[in-house]
Amino acid sequence: MMNWDPAVIAIERHPKAAKKIMAAPPLILCGGFLLLILIGTLLLKLPMATTQPISWLHSVFTATSAVTVTGLVVQDTGTVFTTFGQVVIALLIQCGGLGLMTFAIVTLVALGGRIGFLQRTVAIEAFNQTDASTIVSTAKSVLLFSLIVEVIGMLILAVHWSDTLGWKTSLFHGFFYTISAFNNAGFALSSASLMPYVADPVVNLTISGLFIIGGLGFSVWIDLIKNRRWARLSPYSKMMITGTIIINLVALLAIYFIEYSNPKTLGPLSETGKWLASWFQAVTPRTAGFNTLAIEELRDATTALMLVLMFIGGGSLSTASGIKVVTFMLLVLATYAYLRRDDEVNVFKREIPKEVISKALALSMISIGVTWLAIFVLLISEKHAQMIDVVFEAVSALGTVGLSRGLTGSLSNTGEGIIIFLMFIGRLGPLTLAYFLASPRSKKVRYPKVKMTVG
Amino acid sequence: MMNWDPAVIAIERHPKAAKKIMAAPPLILCGGFLLLILIGTLLLKLPMATTQPISWLHSVFTATSAVTVTGLVVQDTGTVFTTFGQVVIALLIQCGGLGLMTFAIVTLVALGGRIGFLQRTVAIEAFNQTDASTIVSTAKSVLLFSLIVEVIGMLILAVHWSDTLGWKTSLFHGFFYTISAFNNAGFALSSASLMPYVADPVVNLTISGLFIIGGLGFSVWIDLIKNRRWARLSPYSKMMITGTIIINLVALLAIYFIEYSNPKTLGPLSETGKWLASWFQAVTPRTAGFNTLAIEELRDATTALMLVLMFIGGGSLSTASGIKVVTFMLLVLATYAYLRRDDEVNVFKREIPKEVISKALALSMISIGVTWLAIFVLLISEKHAQMIDVVFEAVSALGTVGLSRGLTGSLSNTGEGIIIFLMFIGRLGPLTLAYFLASPRSKKVRYPKVKMTVG
Ligand SMILES: [K+]
Ligand SMILES: [K+]
Repeated sequence: MMNWDPAVIAIERHPKAAKKIMAAPPLILCGGFLLLILIGTLLLKLPMATTQPISWLHSVFTATSAVTVTGLVVQDTGTVFTTFGQVVIALLIQCGGLGLMTFAIVTLVALGGRIGFLQRTVAIEAFNQTDASTIVSTAKSVLLFSLIVEVIGMLILAVHWSDTLGWKTSLFHGFFYTISAFNNAGFALSSASLMPYVADPVVNLTISGLFIIGGLGFSVWIDLIKNRRWARLSPYSKMMITGTIIINLVALLAIYFIEYSNPKTLGPLSETGKWLASWFQAVTPRTAGFNTLAIEELRDATTALMLVLMFIGGGSLSTASGIKVVTFMLLVLATYAYLRRDDEVNVFKREIPKEVISKALALSMISIGVTWLAIFVLLISEKHAQMIDVVFEAVSALGTVGLSRGLTGSLSNTGEGIIIFLMFIGRLGPLTLAYFLASPRSKKVRYPKVKMTVG
Repeated sequence: MMNWDPAVIAIERHPKAAKKIMAAPPLILCGGFLLLILIGTLLLKLPMATTQPISWLHSVFTATSAVTVTGLVVQDTGTVFTTFGQVVIALLIQCGGLGLMTFAIVTLVALGGRIGFLQRTVAIEAFNQTDASTIVSTAKSVLLFSLIVEVIGMLILAVHWSDTLGWKTSLFHGFFYTISAFNNAGFALSSASLMPYVADPVVNLTISGLFIIGGLGFSVWIDLIKNRRWARLSPYSKMMITGTIIINLVALLAIYFIEYSNPKTLGPLSETGKWLASWFQAVTPRTAGFNTLAIEELRDATTALMLVLMFIGGGSLSTASGIKVVTFMLLVLATYAYLRRDDEVNVFKREIPKEVISKALALSMISIGVTWLAIFVLLISEKHAQMIDVVFEAVSALGTVGLSRGLTGSLSNTGEGIIIFLMFIGRLGPLTLAYFLASPRSKKVRYPKVKMTVG
């Protein structure tokens, strides 16, 4: 979560005003996202945005998918949308991914206004920052860093594609795919996603590099840029980096061995191709959402693995969603400590406070509950679909991942509405939930404690 | 889990001895179960136990399924096993369900020996009892109460079936089904389980009554018998009773409405039959394991609901498994408190201590992790099965439920071995886990605490 000092301490002194102000940040975030989706819907419904008329529902769906950086599509981005439409989608992605908040703060700074108390609270929320005073400089660093990374990614892809696509198209593809990858959006200009590039090392490594950097989280990068040496990094950064490496390696090996002989996925590829495709499918579920293999052809064990990866997601303070890598690491560490019967949970020679563990457990539990509920509702609305396809679609939408076993295009109207809602709460839910978990208010009546049987 | 005073306090004074003794109870429980399974395997492999030779693997499977009161079967209990074999299965169920520990303690008491410290610790473990001194009388009450309930159930069923089966067979069926139901084992004398009795109110209500009583947990019944009035019941009993009623009603209504028009389940039944079948399918997943509808024909939403019900299970200190109703209730209450931003979790005007909530969260998280791992391994071993059938089978085995979508009979040898293992850890895991969670040992080195981002 975050440490709310000093902002919280300040408002704790005015308990009556506190309640009102404390409820505001999630509402402001929510309103900002809704506004973006509204603008996106209107722009995408313009005749000049599409090559053929699309329904309002499909327009809302596409705008929501872009703003929440999910990447599920009901209309093929490459053929149904014009270049104008594609630029709108890219901009919605950039706004939704890099975040409403960065823009709001930078705009305020640019206008010369001081950041007010309320805006600062919102920003703390959005950036998961532990110190309110560094918000402005953090916002600037985030933007600068992001733009540098995006320009580099765009140039690599544009140069690589220029031979086959010509410089104009390759530059646009570079622009679109870079924004889509860095923001973990997963929108592609072809209905086959990146499957044509399954064995292309440049595309595989550039795109996965972009979404891994975007998904690591800005705080880690700022930490890396400032401190340079491993020993000086914060325990959070160390856990995030270690966790990312471990999860990616485990997933890489698992997919390589499970799919090795699958004639519909890795089977026909060369050894290099097999490793590249395993790598890409290992890293994409933690919320990038591109794919270079046909997701519906993967073996069931790989599918089960992908469901977990989609649920975990990326880093806090990043363009990725999910319960987050460090939350997952905390669960693993806490379990290990419990099974060893240790009283404390330690990592990198630091003790993790009990309330942090409790928050990680609570957040995960609530996410699991919401995910189950989403699956249940979607199973009722999509009676005729395969159960696993529905489960996959719901988890993908809630984790704002964008991978699909092919259900998206054939969803019922109700189902489409449900997925829109899931993408929205998938993107805003963790932030809001984190906010609630971070700011308990105490009760008037305290009851006596009671012993209780568990398990 | 439980309060270990005074036993734990005693051993905490001798930290060196503590480690050795504290490791013992799970080992003893484990050893007892393994011994029972071994005896069962040998008895069921006898030529007089079966009408046709069965393999050692099937013999181990059946014995494990009976001792762990799961009810998954690879050989039809009604036709492959002789009356002798069926009696062996019933006795294995009674021993595994009512518990090795009751017998061990009662035997010790009958032999006139005093219960030693170690046995008492084991018993605390097995009975989840908060006070070591009441173990012996509790064990006696448990046995007496169980036998009374079983005799009543047996007589009702025997009388009801005597018209069609004749008194001898109906008495045996009454004996077998009562033991199987009260111990939440779900073994039936027909491969169609209780489907022929789908609209028979006596069978439906007697059997479901038996397994609900068995699954409520003895502590609740002792509390009810002793205190009689709601206001005097312990918060645990109140939560268990309220939770059971709420979960059963929600499941009843959900199944009734989801399956109402399903031609392969509720469709052809009368209105009374629909309600009876909805009721039975609503209560059986929380670990009884009988069925009166074809499980594989249920709609996907019902299947998703059943998976959760199987995961929840019954009451602590009962013949049921799973994470337990009160653990689930604690999760719901804690979530509600978090979302309301309450600092304390209250129930029935009592505050639930934070460490109890943490344990509930940890136990659930670990159970979810183990369940996922079980599914993953089984998906690899059963490549050609439907994914949902494999998921259902794994959850059913781990929750020692015994419901199946039909996979059990066609499992590979590896798969059969995995299910045997899952049933075993499904029955002993929660106890052992509870034990570990209940008895933390403190560490030598304490590291400084660190702030950490979650979510
Ligand atoms: K995505
Ligand atoms: K059972």
